[in-house]
Amino acid sequence: MSRLLVRSFGVSLDGFAAGPAQSLEHPLGLRGPELMDWFFPTRVWQRTHPSGGEGGEGGETGVDNDMAELGFAEMGAWILGRNMFGPVRGPWPDEAWKGWWGDEPPYHVPVFVLTHHARAPLAMQGGTTFHFVTGGIHEALAQARAAAGGRDVRLGGGAATVRQYLQAGLIDELHLAVRPVLLGQGEALFAGLDLPALGYVCERQVAGERANHVFLRRRRG
Amino acid sequence: MSRLLVRSFGVSLDGFAAGPAQSLEHPLGLRGPELMDWFFPTRVWQRTHPSGGEGGEGGETGVDNDMAELGFAEMGAWILGRNMFGPVRGPWPDEAWKGWWGDEPPYHVPVFVLTHHARAPLAMQGGTTFHFVTGGIHEALAQARAAAGGRDVRLGGGAATVRQYLQAGLIDELHLAVRPVLLGQGEALFAGLDLPALGYVCERQVAGERANHVFLRRRRG
Repeated sequence: MSRLLVRSFGVSLDGFAAGPAQSLEHPLGLRGPELMDWFFPTRVWQRTHPSGGEGGEGGETGVDNDMAELGFAEMGAWILGRNMFGPVRGPWPDEAWKGWWGDEPPYHVPVFVLTHHARAPLAMQGGTTFHFVTGGIHEALAQARAAAGGRDVRLGGGAATVRQYLQAGLIDELHLAVRPVLLGQGEALFAGLDLPALGYVCERQVAGERANHVFLRRRRG
Repeated sequence: MSRLLVRSFGVSLDGFAAGPAQSLEHPLGLRGPELMDWFFPTRVWQRTHPSGGEGGEGGETGVDNDMAELGFAEMGAWILGRNMFGPVRGPWPDEAWKGWWGDEPPYHVPVFVLTHHARAPLAMQGGTTFHFVTGGIHEALAQARAAAGGRDVRLGGGAATVRQYLQAGLIDELHLAVRPVLLGQGEALFAGLDLPALGYVCERQVAGERANHVFLRRRRG
């Protein structure tokens, strides 16, 4: 069965996975981009987000880039919390919002967006189709697994969504990129979670150029 | 003025600085020793705790050992929370308890123990004298600074004591040794603390053999 994976998930030293006050202007919250400042310089970022970079050929190679590559290898589907898809709250006013990523999002596979408000699937250029799932986290995982065709499913976030899947013991492996920054406020990834009791252990860590990469794995019970 | 420093302070990936259920048998709490499993193999540990080691000559050198050395360089006095001095709670029943460290503790300087219950100073072999301070954290710091003779003061812990001094903005620098383990329960070092608001930034990190060493410094406001 395909695994459910979290990859390249930035966390501050003090355990925050997003800054406070998320909004259209600050999708990762205030100071949230500092959690991803190891990712933005990589070749993977340049390749997957060429419009913001140097035509897909730039970016650094190295440990951080190797770690970022793991986030795109063999993913058959993604799951996103609604806030990762957009800043819209409540019922969809119309279908104008098509995600943060422009006409060709970097997924290139089916993406399942958790929401309380139904919406028709949205096919984008490059193979990404957004499906809106109102049945909860188990339902989204079942749909994503069915769509992944035996490949793995990546849970993109955000923090609240990752916490929900952790609490339910559904995530097989998490790659956290611990950044040497303090946020002080925001979404506390570990608060109230007893990860060992949920079956998780730290399997390995790798020092990167701009982050410390740790891999948490759930033991099959 | 001498600085107040935290050194070699072990923290789990999920932010715990001690395990749950601290006791005479488990002074660091259940699984707490895993937070110090980077320190026990070092030459510094062997030198400072020779009775538990190989006569003071063994132990590993390397990055972790270099980081451990910082904890003993130029310290003129220490401050400890009462639980770091011993498991006795409430008024001292007698003067039988002389700390966890035997006749010659590894401090070799004056040590100020925070407690609500007065007790006469206790002079040990090797230059360590335990002073029992009932006037609170500011009073202990003033006494330690006076005793340190211009050298720095090390705050040894435990977690609750470090949190009190952080909240008061009194710690100049913290060296945390982040271990690749998950505890899930215990004393959460960062809970409810907004370290940037208190003036702290992460100054640098160094990858060691068994821990990721991070240095937090308070900006002089």
